[in-house]
Amino acid sequence: MAEYIESLQRLAEQFARLGGVGKKSAMRMAFSVLDMTEDGAREFAQAIIEAKEKIHLCPVCQNITDKELCPICEDSARDKSTICVVSDAKAVISMEKVREYRGVYHVLGGVISPLNGITPDKLKIKELLERVSDGSVKEVIVATNPNVEGEATAMYIAKILKPLGIKVTRLAYGVPMGADLEYADEVTLYRAIEGRRDY
Amino acid sequence: MAEYIESLQRLAEQFARLGGVGKKSAMRMAFSVLDMTEDGAREFAQAIIEAKEKIHLCPVCQNITDKELCPICEDSARDKSTICVVSDAKAVISMEKVREYRGVYHVLGGVISPLNGITPDKLKIKELLERVSDGSVKEVIVATNPNVEGEATAMYIAKILKPLGIKVTRLAYGVPMGADLEYADEVTLYRAIEGRRDY
Repeated sequence: MAEYIESLQRLAEQFARLGGVGKKSAMRMAFSVLDMTEDGAREFAQAIIEAKEKIHLCPVCQNITDKELCPICEDSARDKSTICVVSDAKAVISMEKVREYRGVYHVLGGVISPLNGITPDKLKIKELLERVSDGSVKEVIVATNPNVEGEATAMYIAKILKPLGIKVTRLAYGVPMGADLEYADEVTLYRAIEGRRDY
Repeated sequence: MAEYIESLQRLAEQFARLGGVGKKSAMRMAFSVLDMTEDGAREFAQAIIEAKEKIHLCPVCQNITDKELCPICEDSARDKSTICVVSDAKAVISMEKVREYRGVYHVLGGVISPLNGITPDKLKIKELLERVSDGSVKEVIVATNPNVEGEATAMYIAKILKPLGIKVTRLAYGVPMGADLEYADEVTLYRAIEGRRDY
């Protein structure tokens, strides 16, 4: 029946375009829109257009922002001599939740993945090199995801930054807090042993 | 960080208003919108407004439609003498998936639930009575959900339709296909025994 109501079907298709939304959830969401007031639906539509129009990349760190600079680059209390390199803006949000890191970020906009046509020149690596070129940056923490592409990207960045005399570090790998060793995979356990620390 | 980017936060809040969407999913969806093209985002916004503007209730069966009548009431091949009463438009979609039912529907727009302030007069029961008043309807199948409110609504409808000489039936209750008896609850099993059929 739903496929006959074109406008409902079209709306569900739009929801299905969002990452991680299946067909059934998309239809459920489309029905939710019907339950909204006219004003509510218009507000929703407006929020989509506004977000898309206002949000752009921070010219310094390539994070998303709707101001001139992103809130982190704008914050004078942040330590500009430490840059944490992440693959995307979502990773910045995750890192910020820790509330411990006081440096700034650099968002690559992806990871090196030749199979998907993402070569280093497609990422914001040139911009990173520009940022460190004036010698004010002391440490670059590479925090790409711990998988093949993330590791390759991290190694690539380390290789070009180290000759410039910049300290390049990466996040510690190991068993996650609250985990059960029984279920930890071998690579993680190996990394945990390799990275063991003194009491 | 995300909370500082107002337009992103506002968009995520809009997604979170949809049924069954949590905070994290809502933020993920908001990010998906940023990945769309400008035109794609505009299309999305347009689909919301159009669905809301165009879709209304079918004057006959109270199902949703963007035409004058709903596709089922409009279909001359459907048997207008059998009406299946459901609580909402989503239930119509579920029933239609079976591709076996050839009658028409009547959407109540909810179920009787005095605690939530939904009394019979808030539902499209008056419209149902009008439909059956000319004597052309032979059977009303009540297909409200098999829970307390659905059952109460079904009984209420049966009570007012039966005196009019209309055959009122309800869906069979029993163990669902593919289920394991070990995990079936007592009420379902009781209903399955009570409703047993000859081979």
